[in-house]
Amino acid sequence: MIPTKACPVTTSELPVDPVFALHRGGKIEIRSTARVRDREGLSLACTPGVAKVCEAIAADPGLADTYTWRSHVVAVVSDGTAVLGLGDIGPLAALPVMEGKALLFKDFGGVDAVPIVLDTTDVNEIVETVVRLAPSFGGINLEDISAPRCFEIERMLQERLDVPVFHDDQHGTAIVVLAALENASRLIDRPLSDLRVVVSGAGAAGVAVAKILLEAGIGDIAVGDSKGIIHAGRTDLVGMKERIASATNTLGLTGSIEEAMHGADVFIGVSSGRVSEAAVASMSSDAMVFALANPDPEVDPAMAMKYAKVVATGRSDYPNQINNVLAFPGIFKGALEVGATQITKGMKLAAAKALADVVGDDVAVDHVIPSVFDQRVSPAVAEAVAKAAREDGVLRPRH
Amino acid sequence: MIPTKACPVTTSELPVDPVFALHRGGKIEIRSTARVRDREGLSLACTPGVAKVCEAIAADPGLADTYTWRSHVVAVVSDGTAVLGLGDIGPLAALPVMEGKALLFKDFGGVDAVPIVLDTTDVNEIVETVVRLAPSFGGINLEDISAPRCFEIERMLQERLDVPVFHDDQHGTAIVVLAALENASRLIDRPLSDLRVVVSGAGAAGVAVAKILLEAGIGDIAVGDSKGIIHAGRTDLVGMKERIASATNTLGLTGSIEEAMHGADVFIGVSSGRVSEAAVASMSSDAMVFALANPDPEVDPAMAMKYAKVVATGRSDYPNQINNVLAFPGIFKGALEVGATQITKGMKLAAAKALADVVGDDVAVDHVIPSVFDQRVSPAVAEAVAKAAREDGVLRPRH
Repeated sequence: MIPTKACPVTTSELPVDPVFALHRGGKIEIRSTARVRDREGLSLACTPGVAKVCEAIAADPGLADTYTWRSHVVAVVSDGTAVLGLGDIGPLAALPVMEGKALLFKDFGGVDAVPIVLDTTDVNEIVETVVRLAPSFGGINLEDISAPRCFEIERMLQERLDVPVFHDDQHGTAIVVLAALENASRLIDRPLSDLRVVVSGAGAAGVAVAKILLEAGIGDIAVGDSKGIIHAGRTDLVGMKERIASATNTLGLTGSIEEAMHGADVFIGVSSGRVSEAAVASMSSDAMVFALANPDPEVDPAMAMKYAKVVATGRSDYPNQINNVLAFPGIFKGALEVGATQITKGMKLAAAKALADVVGDDVAVDHVIPSVFDQRVSPAVAEAVAKAAREDGVLRPRH
Repeated sequence: MIPTKACPVTTSELPVDPVFALHRGGKIEIRSTARVRDREGLSLACTPGVAKVCEAIAADPGLADTYTWRSHVVAVVSDGTAVLGLGDIGPLAALPVMEGKALLFKDFGGVDAVPIVLDTTDVNEIVETVVRLAPSFGGINLEDISAPRCFEIERMLQERLDVPVFHDDQHGTAIVVLAALENASRLIDRPLSDLRVVVSGAGAAGVAVAKILLEAGIGDIAVGDSKGIIHAGRTDLVGMKERIASATNTLGLTGSIEEAMHGADVFIGVSSGRVSEAAVASMSSDAMVFALANPDPEVDPAMAMKYAKVVATGRSDYPNQINNVLAFPGIFKGALEVGATQITKGMKLAAAKALADVVGDDVAVDHVIPSVFDQRVSPAVAEAVAKAAREDGVLRPRH
């Protein structure tokens, strides 16, 4: 029989690993919201009734938002080139992650999401493919696409589509980091404009974190890649890294990431590198360490706690978990609710602010970001994003 | 708020038309089958647990059938060029029909289906797009794509993909027509090989009906288009119609469809044409009339009943409704259950036989095909299709 309920599974088959048991048969399904129980229902939902709805949308395409599921469904699109810590494992092996994302979209944001894994890694082919299937969806969540291809794919899709296109590995991470940093800086009573930040990693997450911190008015930020700190004097930089060089590092730091950490207030690790204990110890007295690489962070969180005032990780077994699920369900929920045509800078900053504000007066060194199970998060983020979209005037006409 | 329940809707807004009320917010949603209620669930379903599943599939792609929803989800793909009686209304306006199809897939076959409407009508672009997103789905149901493009698109996709590709407007219709004709011929105690058939319409449905009737051993079949009966002497035929000319009409009929109906046993109307009462009256004494065009059949069913022994229509307000929902949910259910790589001729014929057999000894002039709400239909079709797939040896390796 076709499995329609995947969990819990009580089977005597091997493997009995609870991970495999939970994933057996997949983690999502389609359900009808307009069940057809008799001939009358069938004639309303399908032929001949549906023809009236089709004709109405043909005459006025805006009605598709009202009379289809388009206003509440997004595509979770990946080519499987940068999956978790696994790298380029291809579309089929990436599918369980995209299903998991769809599950989180629904359970945490009430947003329907469909996993779309693509059998191509060519930038233009990915863009063309997504553009062609775009009438089916009210938004596009790009996922686990390797840098620097992800930057170009997102930019091209944003230019060509009138629905939100959001690469979560970039902006989801950046928004949650900014929210945590806002609360952490409140704790040490220093404004963001006063902080010097070092980001280890110039991939999707590192670039997006740098951008949003600049937009939020951070004091200074230096970004490092595998060859050290990115600065204007480096001759090996092209594309996004060239733009990073000109937009960051006002102090003109050169050399290694560890050297840059000397006296820095914030370290944000989103790379596969390693950072020594001495480098962490050399940071400022109120240091904040975000050791985010998964599953192996650049800095052991236990070690970081010896020196840093605030430590955040990507892991659920430490306080201050930087988890994108705090952002993307609410962001798309808010954007879809008002029919936003894009996710603007203002909407991202508003999401971070709303997320930080959920913590409010409960802020503490082990609580700079809400729990992923805090049910206030998604509605708060959605409301802030919807409001910012209205203020930015990026709404489709609605009926 | 995002609508998650579309029906029933009790709103004071206009329009109060029950069709629009039912379609408001769309007709389908995504549901999680592995709900994540706590940190442990999250770590199993998503990071870090899911990485184990990804690695297993990367090492052995066949495991995707077991550990994702791929084994029970199909894409309902359309470019909106041949929707119902409406014609080329484009992808957005076609979306309500594809949602309805997804609803029927689930409610009638337990198969998950995702509407994918494409913003291109170019044959090669449609094929490339579907090939690229194919890792996401266990089957492809093509829908409402205009002829003759639909023939080429289906053939190219079947060549390139190892999952079932099925253009329902062709084969779904053909299978249900064959099932009804098998029962109707039992009623008049004549074998299919003894019957002379005229098909009005050489589009998707007409061509597929002609093919399956030939495969089922029909006596003779003549197909007509807007210029009359298709025969080898016509010089205006290319592509599929040229093949129709060589494979059908062994009697060498020429002239109009109405002329061909003289003395014919079966008329099958799947075109926008009209047929006169005199032509129906000129058919054989045990005539069968399938007046299937929607919403306006070639022959008024009430008129046809004056002359024909058996009348079937596409409408729910007459007996013998030829409705594709009798076929496609069970066909995909059966094909997906066994991991079939294609829908073979044998699987289609088996589906028709199983569908006819559901009627069994209850066969009557007003009951040559089961009701669409007969719950025996989908399991019977699925079982027959799965058995035929095994016999034809078109199974993917499964774990």
